[in-house]
Amino acid sequence: MKVSILGVGLIGGSIGLAASQRLRCEVVGFDPNPNALRHAIEKGAISRGADTVAAACEGADAVFCAAPVAALAELARAALDATGPEAIVTDVGSTKWEIAVALGESERFIGGHPLAGAETAGVENARGDLFEGARWYLTPIGGVEGAAFEQLQQTVTGLGARPQAIEAEAHDRLMATVSHLPHVLANALAGVAVAELSTDSEQMPEVGPSFRDATRVAGSNPAVWADIFAANRESVANAIEALVGQLNQAVDVIRGGDRDAVTFWHHAAAIQRRRLLETELTGEVLRELRIVVANRPGKVAELSQALADAGVNIEDMVLHPAPSDGPGAISLWVAGHDRAASVARLARELGHTVSAVEDED
Amino acid sequence: MKVSILGVGLIGGSIGLAASQRLRCEVVGFDPNPNALRHAIEKGAISRGADTVAAACEGADAVFCAAPVAALAELARAALDATGPEAIVTDVGSTKWEIAVALGESERFIGGHPLAGAETAGVENARGDLFEGARWYLTPIGGVEGAAFEQLQQTVTGLGARPQAIEAEAHDRLMATVSHLPHVLANALAGVAVAELSTDSEQMPEVGPSFRDATRVAGSNPAVWADIFAANRESVANAIEALVGQLNQAVDVIRGGDRDAVTFWHHAAAIQRRRLLETELTGEVLRELRIVVANRPGKVAELSQALADAGVNIEDMVLHPAPSDGPGAISLWVAGHDRAASVARLARELGHTVSAVEDED
Repeated sequence: MKVSILGVGLIGGSIGLAASQRLRCEVVGFDPNPNALRHAIEKGAISRGADTVAAACEGADAVFCAAPVAALAELARAALDATGPEAIVTDVGSTKWEIAVALGESERFIGGHPLAGAETAGVENARGDLFEGARWYLTPIGGVEGAAFEQLQQTVTGLGARPQAIEAEAHDRLMATVSHLPHVLANALAGVAVAELSTDSEQMPEVGPSFRDATRVAGSNPAVWADIFAANRESVANAIEALVGQLNQAVDVIRGGDRDAVTFWHHAAAIQRRRLLETELTGEVLRELRIVVANRPGKVAELSQALADAGVNIEDMVLHPAPSDGPGAISLWVAGHDRAASVARLARELGHTVSAVEDED
Repeated sequence: MKVSILGVGLIGGSIGLAASQRLRCEVVGFDPNPNALRHAIEKGAISRGADTVAAACEGADAVFCAAPVAALAELARAALDATGPEAIVTDVGSTKWEIAVALGESERFIGGHPLAGAETAGVENARGDLFEGARWYLTPIGGVEGAAFEQLQQTVTGLGARPQAIEAEAHDRLMATVSHLPHVLANALAGVAVAELSTDSEQMPEVGPSFRDATRVAGSNPAVWADIFAANRESVANAIEALVGQLNQAVDVIRGGDRDAVTFWHHAAAIQRRRLLETELTGEVLRELRIVVANRPGKVAELSQALADAGVNIEDMVLHPAPSDGPGAISLWVAGHDRAASVARLARELGHTVSAVEDED
């Protein structure tokens, strides 16, 4: 099987590595940046580079377009033009509706979106196991799952991922809510805080851990996000409006001052968050533990080592609070009651105080 | 000097420990829960317990009211009634306007709010160093800093904290923005996601790290938050409305589809977040590093240990992504360029790929 990779960055390079290592494919790459091609060859992500899209696609069974979102439609069209009637063309963009509309007439194009690698970039970070266990959305036109879909599904599975078919529009709505909206929110929150401060005090306030968490992605990677917001603007705008609706309800509940209503509203959110997070865990409940430690490097390391020795995997982790050298706590999320009990025991053996954050539902 | 603690939970108990260990005070405690009093004595947080507020306050130079927010005004009034003309009464509640209005006639009452301990609770977690380096807001009535204020300021400094005077109303506005609003937001975001899902797909989607961060505090500790939202309802409602204003602007920018406008808006948020976070670091810039690791327990531990051995303190840390056993990355925030360079070097020596997240301003 021959695979073409158009755009050999983190995702393209990782597809190349996985395709060659796991599926024994011949992998040909194209990239407008000759340095990226050279790095990709050195890394073994592609067996050779091509000077043009057409040359890279020649004789390919599957073409992966892995360029920035704004360039994908044109690239995919060029790939369709350069490939034979049996070849499948797909992409890896974070939004799927725009490209589905642009390429809608072709049965050989199926959009795709692997949920992996968002935390870094560049072919130098490419790995053959990047997609191991990762969700990979596929958006066959009109939701139709034909022969081309089945072949692509098999290829994606072969790369280590877990493919799932979804309509392009539903995909973009979903991403708008669970991925793009938090980024908008982080930006808006940072804006509110700075505006509040400049009217109010000479110095900036010290911010707490909840603020740090809520704004962690504020302004991250402007080039990528400008493209995503442009390509998914209606869904993102709708998601923001849905959030504004929720916030207006919160204003009513909080201004109303009915303590029971506030408690009910707050409690409901705890249940909702848990429902969302638990879906990642193949049926296991997510348990949160809070461990009081001195917020000094050695304590975190000691605890991590103990958990490592015991083979406990950490699903999520956050340190409170940030100020240097102060005492603090670690929140750890682990899957399942048994693992939570193990973590609690290990942490107590190291002399830490552990509290299980109570199940709220 | 004699100190009374009314309410011996985490904060009250820690004040008691710090007052006795650092200021050599006699510390008397009152708590409606006899078990808490017993624990506090066992821990050395108080030298003895009293059966009534009046008995606990007898002869006190300073009284710290450390009960839930809703109970503070009544408790502080009882403490004022039970103490002499030289005694100072203060509290440690998260909101300050309501109690300032209730106790406004007394020059012996000065509101307070230490920024510490939010991540845990209970006298069993009390520590004499809980306030070490922590901001401790003091809200003298009308902002007037008289003799009583100076005495309280000295006491709070003696407990290890960094006192700062602020008007009660400004304090509540500040907290509404940097602390209470993120909690509201986390709740609203969880609500939007669940609503979106139930209309859209049979299964819940898998959520990304930005969603996890933004909803981490959703629904946490309903009893505490219901009180805070009640006591600070106007400021919180105003902060939500300010955020809604920012979000409506975001809708306009994103729906407008002008890429430059989107980029400008997004970039501004990065600068804003950095300005806010750097205020915690006494003048040092905050550097973010992204380290690619296998998301398996041993790797996190190994890296933490290396940083510990090198004496590098971690300001903030987050793991991407959560799914078990997959490869992933760690974001680390450290103070100062030199420390960032050390972390990068250490991580590279362990075979990880490191990228510095670029300075955006």
